[in-house]
Amino acid sequence: MNSWKDNIRTVEPYVPGEQPKDTNVIKLNTNENPYGPSGKVNEVKLDMNNLRKYPDAKVSALVNKLAEYHNIKPEQVFVGVGSDDVISMCFMTFFNSDKPIFFPDVTYSFYDVWADVYRIPYEQKKLDENFNIVKEDYMAENGGIIFPNPNAPTGILVDTDFIEDIVKANPASVVIIDEAYIDFGGKSVLPLIDKYDNLLVVRTFSKSRSMAGLRIGYAMGNSELIKYLNDVKYSVNSYTMNTPSIIYGSAIIDDEEYFRSTLDKIISTRERFVGELKRLGFNVLPSKANFVFASHKSVDANVIFETLKEKKVYVRHWNAPRISDYLRITIGTDEEMDKLISLLEDICCATK
Amino acid sequence: MNSWKDNIRTVEPYVPGEQPKDTNVIKLNTNENPYGPSGKVNEVKLDMNNLRKYPDAKVSALVNKLAEYHNIKPEQVFVGVGSDDVISMCFMTFFNSDKPIFFPDVTYSFYDVWADVYRIPYEQKKLDENFNIVKEDYMAENGGIIFPNPNAPTGILVDTDFIEDIVKANPASVVIIDEAYIDFGGKSVLPLIDKYDNLLVVRTFSKSRSMAGLRIGYAMGNSELIKYLNDVKYSVNSYTMNTPSIIYGSAIIDDEEYFRSTLDKIISTRERFVGELKRLGFNVLPSKANFVFASHKSVDANVIFETLKEKKVYVRHWNAPRISDYLRITIGTDEEMDKLISLLEDICCATK
Repeated sequence: MNSWKDNIRTVEPYVPGEQPKDTNVIKLNTNENPYGPSGKVNEVKLDMNNLRKYPDAKVSALVNKLAEYHNIKPEQVFVGVGSDDVISMCFMTFFNSDKPIFFPDVTYSFYDVWADVYRIPYEQKKLDENFNIVKEDYMAENGGIIFPNPNAPTGILVDTDFIEDIVKANPASVVIIDEAYIDFGGKSVLPLIDKYDNLLVVRTFSKSRSMAGLRIGYAMGNSELIKYLNDVKYSVNSYTMNTPSIIYGSAIIDDEEYFRSTLDKIISTRERFVGELKRLGFNVLPSKANFVFASHKSVDANVIFETLKEKKVYVRHWNAPRISDYLRITIGTDEEMDKLISLLEDICCATK
Repeated sequence: MNSWKDNIRTVEPYVPGEQPKDTNVIKLNTNENPYGPSGKVNEVKLDMNNLRKYPDAKVSALVNKLAEYHNIKPEQVFVGVGSDDVISMCFMTFFNSDKPIFFPDVTYSFYDVWADVYRIPYEQKKLDENFNIVKEDYMAENGGIIFPNPNAPTGILVDTDFIEDIVKANPASVVIIDEAYIDFGGKSVLPLIDKYDNLLVVRTFSKSRSMAGLRIGYAMGNSELIKYLNDVKYSVNSYTMNTPSIIYGSAIIDDEEYFRSTLDKIISTRERFVGELKRLGFNVLPSKANFVFASHKSVDANVIFETLKEKKVYVRHWNAPRISDYLRITIGTDEEMDKLISLLEDICCATK
């Protein structure tokens, strides 16, 4: 007999990092910022009565602030419910070809999930033996290109010329550079959006801006790309970004001083932590993100992962090809990293 | 030459009701609730520092509250960023057949937009001459069924037996009943979800619960339907509902007394307003929603619409087949409706 189950879109869903209810956990598994957002959010009064009204569908307040901050036009900014929403919309809007889209084999683990859910053909291009993206792999015919810079979970950055070569070689594809982690030491390719109409740069408030709880992401590109994105977005859900996100999100953008100070702290903690990891016998990839990707010379990554979890320190580990020897560790506060170092000393010496 | 524009998903986007920046406007165009949400939201303290963390991807706090309120299991509740997000996910998840889905020709104007964006074939079934849904139309082979109850923009309600007959006749399709307006005088078909595994009931916080600004919607059905929905949702965006929505949304559910009191006020204002409209020569469809759909016997709907707009009263008018003679007017406060009545008296007498 026919059943409604015959018509279901079945997918292998993305599994996000654990969000433990236990507040004693040291949470270094989802690349959250250890420092809160700018205190400017405390100065904003949310008018509860106003929640009865729909938010501004165009999110003008936030779009205008972001345009001003980045010195581009408001028509060049698209906002969404986290960069996941933004990139998901990009997949729907721009990756409509029968040709495969390209992204690295080791990268943000949502790309193949989106490709599957939207039935987009794709090819995963192998990183080299040092986990570097191979530029030439992205010069073949394709239906679109996406990768993060710095890449995740490796943390490895490529420079502007590297990306410009790829964008220039692919005028028939939209190239999306996911700059979720760019503020932690990388150089943005944003200046290229006025030179190439097929380049889209994606950002998030969830990492450097410390607002993962609000779900704010955005894309920047030429106004035509942004218009196509908005057309699809308005056809899926006209009002996605809610009033608190618009208000709180807009409030923090001006506080550049606080923003820079937390970035400096995270970068300095990262550099110190990398030194300690190396001292303990870890191979650490060169990270320009707020996390490091590291593998111990003798102790199994899953053993470290499970032992840390017992001690209430959560990091990230994937039982996936090529990276099962590695742990992705978010940079927390100095105190959190000291605690972790001390646990790693025990684990790596005890089992040696 | 090939261009990235060859691969764009182009769509005719949905046009939402205007959101004027002018706060002196009487806004009766988007079916917002004239009364604010329960004062319980003011008792909640949002910890700004906590915004640095991702929200709970499972939205357990809100899901559990809703399950308790409706006396069903948490596994029977799916939440999304407004009912638009929920229904959009339903289209993606459940309407995957090559057979056309069915919905009325006069109904929520987003259904055909979603069908277009997701490339789903559809047939719009003609309402009868009194704008009633014709049950028998939904007994043919199809890939899914959706309609609002009460229907929008007509406001006309069907009873539980009517819907049960359709659900029973379509075991091979998921039937979605969009109950966005059910609280304003209708009877929910929610009890049927334990009897039929192909029925999904959708609700929103944007109308009766007065929280359009937070973007909260939810669906209820058997746990298998909900699981399929969650699998697709986690594959599109794992963290859609932000922390303020989870916290504020959960806070108001217990305040049944305030909820009921605002519903009573809106219903009583509606009944009085309908009487006035009839007195002024309007044909008014029998509404069980927080809006009415009305056509004047002699004055052109667009003339009324434009004149009201000049006077800073916004209502909704569609230049669309069958309904271009009608206005959809949201029920506001008594004061707002008095102002509107007085303007309508001028317009309909002056042009007579």
